[in-house]
Amino acid sequence: MKHQIVRNIKRADADIIKTLGEQGVATIHEAQGRTGLLNPYMRPIYPAARVAGSAITISCQPGDNLMIHAAIEVCQPGDVLVVTTTSESTDGMFGELLATSCQAHGIRGLIIDAGVRDVADLTAMDFPVWSKAISAQGTVKATPGSVNIDVVCAGAIVRSGDVIVGDLDGVVVVKRELAAEVAQLGQKRIEKEQRSRERLQAGELGIDFYGLRAKLKELGVEYLDE
Amino acid sequence: MKHQIVRNIKRADADIIKTLGEQGVATIHEAQGRTGLLNPYMRPIYPAARVAGSAITISCQPGDNLMIHAAIEVCQPGDVLVVTTTSESTDGMFGELLATSCQAHGIRGLIIDAGVRDVADLTAMDFPVWSKAISAQGTVKATPGSVNIDVVCAGAIVRSGDVIVGDLDGVVVVKRELAAEVAQLGQKRIEKEQRSRERLQAGELGIDFYGLRAKLKELGVEYLDE
Amino acid sequence: MKHQIVRNIKRADADIIKTLGEQGVATIHEAQGRTGLLNPYMRPIYPAARVAGSAITISCQPGDNLMIHAAIEVCQPGDVLVVTTTSESTDGMFGELLATSCQAHGIRGLIIDAGVRDVADLTAMDFPVWSKAISAQGTVKATPGSVNIDVVCAGAIVRSGDVIVGDLDGVVVVKRELAAEVAQLGQKRIEKEQRSRERLQAGELGIDFYGLRAKLKELGVEYLDE
Amino acid sequence: MKHQIVRNIKRADADIIKTLGEQGVATIHEAQGRTGLLNPYMRPIYPAARVAGSAITISCQPGDNLMIHAAIEVCQPGDVLVVTTTSESTDGMFGELLATSCQAHGIRGLIIDAGVRDVADLTAMDFPVWSKAISAQGTVKATPGSVNIDVVCAGAIVRSGDVIVGDLDGVVVVKRELAAEVAQLGQKRIEKEQRSRERLQAGELGIDFYGLRAKLKELGVEYLDE
Amino acid sequence: MKHQIVRNIKRADADIIKTLGEQGVATIHEAQGRTGLLNPYMRPIYPAARVAGSAITISCQPGDNLMIHAAIEVCQPGDVLVVTTTSESTDGMFGELLATSCQAHGIRGLIIDAGVRDVADLTAMDFPVWSKAISAQGTVKATPGSVNIDVVCAGAIVRSGDVIVGDLDGVVVVKRELAAEVAQLGQKRIEKEQRSRERLQAGELGIDFYGLRAKLKELGVEYLDE
Amino acid sequence: MKHQIVRNIKRADADIIKTLGEQGVATIHEAQGRTGLLNPYMRPIYPAARVAGSAITISCQPGDNLMIHAAIEVCQPGDVLVVTTTSESTDGMFGELLATSCQAHGIRGLIIDAGVRDVADLTAMDFPVWSKAISAQGTVKATPGSVNIDVVCAGAIVRSGDVIVGDLDGVVVVKRELAAEVAQLGQKRIEKEQRSRERLQAGELGIDFYGLRAKLKELGVEYLDE
Repeated sequence: MKHQIVRNIKRADADIIKTLGEQGVATIHEAQGRTGLLNPYMRPIYPAARVAGSAITISCQPGDNLMIHAAIEVCQPGDVLVVTTTSESTDGMFGELLATSCQAHGIRGLIIDAGVRDVADLTAMDFPVWSKAISAQGTVKATPGSVNIDVVCAGAIVRSGDVIVGDLDGVVVVKRELAAEVAQLGQKRIEKEQRSRERLQAGELGIDFYGLRAKLKELGVEYLDE
Repeated sequence: MKHQIVRNIKRADADIIKTLGEQGVATIHEAQGRTGLLNPYMRPIYPAARVAGSAITISCQPGDNLMIHAAIEVCQPGDVLVVTTTSESTDGMFGELLATSCQAHGIRGLIIDAGVRDVADLTAMDFPVWSKAISAQGTVKATPGSVNIDVVCAGAIVRSGDVIVGDLDGVVVVKRELAAEVAQLGQKRIEKEQRSRERLQAGELGIDFYGLRAKLKELGVEYLDE
Repeated sequence: MKHQIVRNIKRADADIIKTLGEQGVATIHEAQGRTGLLNPYMRPIYPAARVAGSAITISCQPGDNLMIHAAIEVCQPGDVLVVTTTSESTDGMFGELLATSCQAHGIRGLIIDAGVRDVADLTAMDFPVWSKAISAQGTVKATPGSVNIDVVCAGAIVRSGDVIVGDLDGVVVVKRELAAEVAQLGQKRIEKEQRSRERLQAGELGIDFYGLRAKLKELGVEYLDE
Repeated sequence: MKHQIVRNIKRADADIIKTLGEQGVATIHEAQGRTGLLNPYMRPIYPAARVAGSAITISCQPGDNLMIHAAIEVCQPGDVLVVTTTSESTDGMFGELLATSCQAHGIRGLIIDAGVRDVADLTAMDFPVWSKAISAQGTVKATPGSVNIDVVCAGAIVRSGDVIVGDLDGVVVVKRELAAEVAQLGQKRIEKEQRSRERLQAGELGIDFYGLRAKLKELGVEYLDE
Repeated sequence: MKHQIVRNIKRADADIIKTLGEQGVATIHEAQGRTGLLNPYMRPIYPAARVAGSAITISCQPGDNLMIHAAIEVCQPGDVLVVTTTSESTDGMFGELLATSCQAHGIRGLIIDAGVRDVADLTAMDFPVWSKAISAQGTVKATPGSVNIDVVCAGAIVRSGDVIVGDLDGVVVVKRELAAEVAQLGQKRIEKEQRSRERLQAGELGIDFYGLRAKLKELGVEYLDE
Repeated sequence: MKHQIVRNIKRADADIIKTLGEQGVATIHEAQGRTGLLNPYMRPIYPAARVAGSAITISCQPGDNLMIHAAIEVCQPGDVLVVTTTSESTDGMFGELLATSCQAHGIRGLIIDAGVRDVADLTAMDFPVWSKAISAQGTVKATPGSVNIDVVCAGAIVRSGDVIVGDLDGVVVVKRELAAEVAQLGQKRIEKEQRSRERLQAGELGIDFYGLRAKLKELGVEYLDE
């Protein structure tokens, strides 16, 4: 029950992370059995934002970004900051100076269950952020927290080293130890969807394609002609 | 109290629908006596989204898109899907594969009082969607619902065949049988607004223009010089 | 306890307002001791929106824009309308015709703790608006209110003549009589941040830079190596 | 598209209304195929509140209770007021004086998709109210609306003369022409539930009782022993 | 722009405060022209809660109750604490120990635009609280704030020494210098309402009583007989 | 990534659970370093609700209570059901029949991050429930889920066998393996608070008692006499 900063964490393989990043959030979420999605209130600050990397988890007091500063030291290039607060907050705990520091250390982006500011600058820097709010509300550096403990971020459990993927559909977390398996399942799903796409483009109906006519009948849905 | 799919519905005249689409949401809403507007939480997934078409209404179990698949079969080119759930949901019940199928059948867009996913793809396809949320959360195909019954979508009653218009200001529904009358009233409003615009551009004040000085006096509003 | 329109108000110096506008919301909010920020639900209707001007405060009945019309008459070029309602509302109380009138009188923008409509037109006109909602819901002109009284807008006290600055981070209000002092403090902050930026870009860590190692130790935060 | 007050409406049979009131909201909602429930944000102002009656529907401008006054004249003993606003509002549009007037005319209660005030008095009078908010915010009597038109109240379509039932679980609307059939189905449901209750009290498991073991197996749910 | 604790403040007359407390929130809100009401999300923690007293205003960092402790020293018997945070928070910043201290110094109650805890104890002690949330979330004592400056609490401006009245309908603030006038207007309103009550109880209709028939006609509302 | 029901779980010692139940939510939350609290939107359905027991965790599809039925079989007397959904829902997934079954098997209560119904019956049965909503909205039994996997319930990680304590302040989860330690720390806290209570009752000030005068000075808070 003490506050801790865990310095060394395990990370997934860089190639796997790259593959997951290309697959995107919706594919990964399906591939891992519809799990791991952060709440949909987490939105990118600009439409082209896209990220894939290893989670550095950070637990802060609301309105206090001390632990974000502490976390940067234990990051490696390719990491993504995942910030939560001990109770709800929309304060702008992260801005352009912190992003500058992040980019200097190869950190790829930020997932924050709170607010962010200097959004015009972050967009110009192409530093991708998914947040609950945009707010200029400044923060103090006064209260202890932890780095690389298990956290709940926007409704999902995130463990340090888990793979984080973000795009226009939101953010998904992949357990580090399942990353390779999920990437494989995602690939299969992409291939299957390509075949579905072609048939649907040709005008085939989903209720035929997915065999849903029998289901509708079994469920007692009636057709009326007017 | 059974689940039904109504196959054949009446639609408004295509020219009237086109005219209403050109008039836009705010004009139509005023023209029909400030009625028919969906709740403002319904937002387009990209700024250029714009749609006008005939409503195919769909009632789903939350987290279940079985009935969207069933509805596509009863659509005609020029239709717009209007999806509601039997209780609140933000699940991403519609994505790029369904949009591919919709475009193959001439369906013009989607109004969904729930979530949508594959937003980057939908934007690239120019398939306009107004939704309550963007969410990658996948859905099952397990529970019955209905197509082309009266529904409440985002606070407004929508009947199958009603005219749906969506733009950057939101979504409005026009009763099918009133569509021609509303289009005419809208046209008059546009002409009247053009005259107002010219006078306001010339610097005339709204309180003179709309005759509000007397109203303010009657309501007891006082002017102070300090 | 009567409804009033105050015709003549004091304004801050135009050069100071210009400087504050260049500094932006986050800098000003910090410079004045983290005060004056409007709630983060206030969002610009287009990303490039940016404004700085003198507040004309307006208190309306929800769903009634009579007092906005009345307020335009007492504006001067360089003013910004700040609209509140006596209880919560998302109605679109302001649209393209009012914006046309505003631009004819040199009014620079609108801050409204309610809704706005004709957003595509307002964007095309480059008339910047920060609002709680986008809604086509029309309003009446039937109920009295006040102009240039003290109001609470989105959680912040605004007095007529206070300086309003809005950008992608939100909206901040600067007390008229403190505007010069805040602008000076903001300038110092910008210079200080430039030096910080350079050191952080060079890879120096925030916990060294801001002297936070001692703080972490004092607060009992422990480092673990795994 | 004009504002109207419909004076004479059809009502359901008084005995049927009484029976539905005894069955309660959850039973009725199930009996009519899980339809007709108002949004769960509608809460009773005191725990013992319970009502059943015929809907008098009222559409008001937000912040304006003119039409509630107009509606009382067309009520009969046994009616329930169902109030909606043309856009979202929490204003306290109804208080102790209106309740006094209602009780003088035999009106049984109020369903209001807005606010209510004088809650201590209403509780003492045992005048049941389900509302979205409790708010002392007063209203004007300035803007037209309608009485006994179709309305959407808290997400449900209500037509004048429909049966309204409210209790601690919320509010449900029963279509007037289906009231007798729903009451019958409700009665069957109550009898069936009584038999279920006895078996469950005796310790029988729901998965046996409802035959769910096969379902779980078919859906691929696995049992693990640790 | 410094943090301050103002030790000595002006208060309204004790008899006036008592009278306002007896009139209640809805009456006062009307008597002062429908102003001064706090947002309706402020709810009492138990139904019998009722308070009237002089405001001690407190501005805190979210999640930090240092300034509440500091404020108690400057209170006098009959005061009410009015607590705001510099950004949104639901943390339980106040509990049974602070209430014990308050009662020891004659403080009558708490209005807090955040959370409260130990609700069972506070109810047993009859220490009335109106809050935005009930939450056990504990707070630190680490960050500076101010006491007896102007604050915005739940959307209303509160100045130290203003009269605070709370009951089951919510919370209203009366400007100290207007307290006597408001109390007088409230008394007139109560007398007038008593006469109205009698006539409404006798069955007279509000539309006759308030002369609304002409208004409805003027506004174009039509009566239909079916 | 399969759906699982784990039959056998470890539980904390019954005496420890009893002690934690007596300490209550606020004390436990503090004792374990301000962790483990569920979001404050989780509210008891009646004021006297109070529970302490071992968590049986349940993950359901929104609108589907199949897995609650499956979970009851693996419960032991003294357990508490902890129900989450894979995306947000307010559906009434639990009612009087399920509570009857729970009581027949010694289950002590329910924590559900969704809705509950038959609230009047549950209150009469004294079956305590903490939920996000009260809703009569019925559910299906069609979609697989899991029992006794790690879940996130209302923002907190809950593992099967963790200790759940609920009272009027909300709900807190204690890690099974830390339960004894937390109970001890809670006891110390209760004793310390008793000493504080006595001194505060005697009129001693918190700023003296907690040594905050120096802190205020160090933080630069100024005292003013007017």
